Amino acid sequence: MTKKILNNPKQAAWEALEGLNLALMGKTTLISEASTLLRTDIPQGKVALLVGGGSGHEPLFAGFVGENLADGAVCGNVFAAPAPDQILSATRAVNRGKGVLYLYGNYAGDNMNFDIAAEMAESESIATKTVRIWDDVASAPLDKIEERRGIAGDLFVIKVAGAAAAHVKTLEELECITSKARDNTRSMGVAVAPGSIPETGEPTFEIGEDEIEIGMGLHGEPGVAREKMMSADELVEKMMAQILSDLPFRTGDEVCLLINNLGATTMMELLLVNKKVRSILKKEGINVHDTLIGSYCTSQEMGGFSISLLKLDEELKTYYDMPVESFALTRR
Amino acid sequence: MTKKILNNPKQAAWEALEGLNLALMGKTTLISEASTLLRTDIPQGKVALLVGGGSGHEPLFAGFVGENLADGAVCGNVFAAPAPDQILSATRAVNRGKGVLYLYGNYAGDNMNFDIAAEMAESESIATKTVRIWDDVASAPLDKIEERRGIAGDLFVIKVAGAAAAHVKTLEELECITSKARDNTRSMGVAVAPGSIPETGEPTFEIGEDEIEIGMGLHGEPGVAREKMMSADELVEKMMAQILSDLPFRTGDEVCLLINNLGATTMMELLLVNKKVRSILKKEGINVHDTLIGSYCTSQEMGGFSISLLKLDEELKTYYDMPVESFALTRR
Repeated sequence: MTKKILNNPKQAAWEALEGLNLALMGKTTLISEASTLLRTDIPQGKVALLVGGGSGHEPLFAGFVGENLADGAVCGNVFAAPAPDQILSATRAVNRGKGVLYLYGNYAGDNMNFDIAAEMAESESIATKTVRIWDDVASAPLDKIEERRGIAGDLFVIKVAGAAAAHVKTLEELECITSKARDNTRSMGVAVAPGSIPETGEPTFEIGEDEIEIGMGLHGEPGVAREKMMSADELVEKMMAQILSDLPFRTGDEVCLLINNLGATTMMELLLVNKKVRSILKKEGINVHDTLIGSYCTSQEMGGFSISLLKLDEELKTYYDMPVESFALTRR
Repeated sequence: MTKKILNNPKQAAWEALEGLNLALMGKTTLISEASTLLRTDIPQGKVALLVGGGSGHEPLFAGFVGENLADGAVCGNVFAAPAPDQILSATRAVNRGKGVLYLYGNYAGDNMNFDIAAEMAESESIATKTVRIWDDVASAPLDKIEERRGIAGDLFVIKVAGAAAAHVKTLEELECITSKARDNTRSMGVAVAPGSIPETGEPTFEIGEDEIEIGMGLHGEPGVAREKMMSADELVEKMMAQILSDLPFRTGDEVCLLINNLGATTMMELLLVNKKVRSILKKEGINVHDTLIGSYCTSQEMGGFSISLLKLDEELKTYYDMPVESFALTRR
């Protein structure tokens, strides 16, 4: 059982959100009853972007509230969707008269609760649209893409959507650009060791001392194969083969690359993974426009990482390149 | 034994540095034979800042090479100081005619090798000065401050020194400002689980299932006490008491706050630690100017974290507030 530095484990997600708000030095505020972090400076007349989902994946989602990113993040308990009334409160709080885009990972609980909140918002004449992120190529075949889970590729979609939300005139435009960012994003994760749930101490899955799970989900959902440990280069070859063939990414494409730490993997490992990813992309004639490597979307202290690619076009690149400032991502 | 995603473990530090250089998209270059990462755009006539030390603490040190940060980072093997000839090569490469400040953590191996390199540089008429960082209050008493180790407070000293290096006219001025930043920085770490050495798989220390080491060093060096696990709030009280009384920090002081992940601790834990740190600082009447929370100075997958405070004055604040761009830290 992993030792965690906690007070009351049942309050850990909420205490962490309070700590996050304090770290942001006045750039954000909290709606306590809705476990929602908000930008303090959402301009009137802006199309709003609300992200959210279960806690336990810090810094996702609340770490991406900020300039040219999300206007608010509504947070459920650990690995649990936020409730409809929380989402409704958050919706009211971010709405500036132009409606609210809901952007979140494609999980049954989140889908249900955001949909209920959307109906409640409609009855209050607040327009909403929804984009669900389903970037995990290991979680369902391509012809069932709408059954795939959302994992670290969330970050790319939030980054594009956040910048677009600051510039478009209508909710429909924002939905359109955000959907394109989602449709151009592919990810895959692997895990060598589980995380554990703060409240129970229980590991999220079991795995042998010499095993690795290919395609592991963000909450310990099974992947596509359990294999014996292999070299970093062999592993990256396997992951990239599945990611590249899925969209597919082709020679001449320009991409953004994210290597995301699922928790306890060292930066040394992520960096040497990057070396191999880049050699594969170079061989395929795919150009890398930007690289992010770090702990953006975690599963507690899970050992493992994911690789995500976002295929750019001129419009996506324009929005991707806009400067952002938030707890977890600041880029000039 | 922790499973790591590696190729040849002996090459891991070097492969990671190559991966880091690739992630920086042309903003840096590598000197292979010296395991040194350099900014590509060091201006002529600039006083140069060279940081460095053992690998295994990623993103420290090479993650802080960039604008208003270090001009270069010279990297030893895992937990081993860089060799004098590496440091000399790096010194030549960053020097722009105004001399080079060596800035690194206070460890015997680093001290010896940087001092030898300084003599070799002098014989080539390259001026150098040295500031050793000794922020770890748990590693020696205050009256033996020069025996203390350098830990995550490195980041604050590098941030001030990097901005100062871009603006001062002389090496002596840079040494003076950097020494002040060092003298105003205090840190303390705790650990609940060891990291492991990539080459051997050996844990860096042993600890009981219900124990926590107060004052643990960055390589698993013993701290001041081994205690039974306690709540986050109790733990933070202990750590802050020792940090605050050491400088000492006083009512009315303005500080920057760093909560640094030593490896495998979750962001949720770090954030709730921040909540308690802030409540203690508020009670003491100490104002927080900026907060950094994340994995800046790690010890492989060690479970644990450290708290660092930098006491500001007008000069330090001016330099601290300058925008920076690097792999591990970008601030506007």
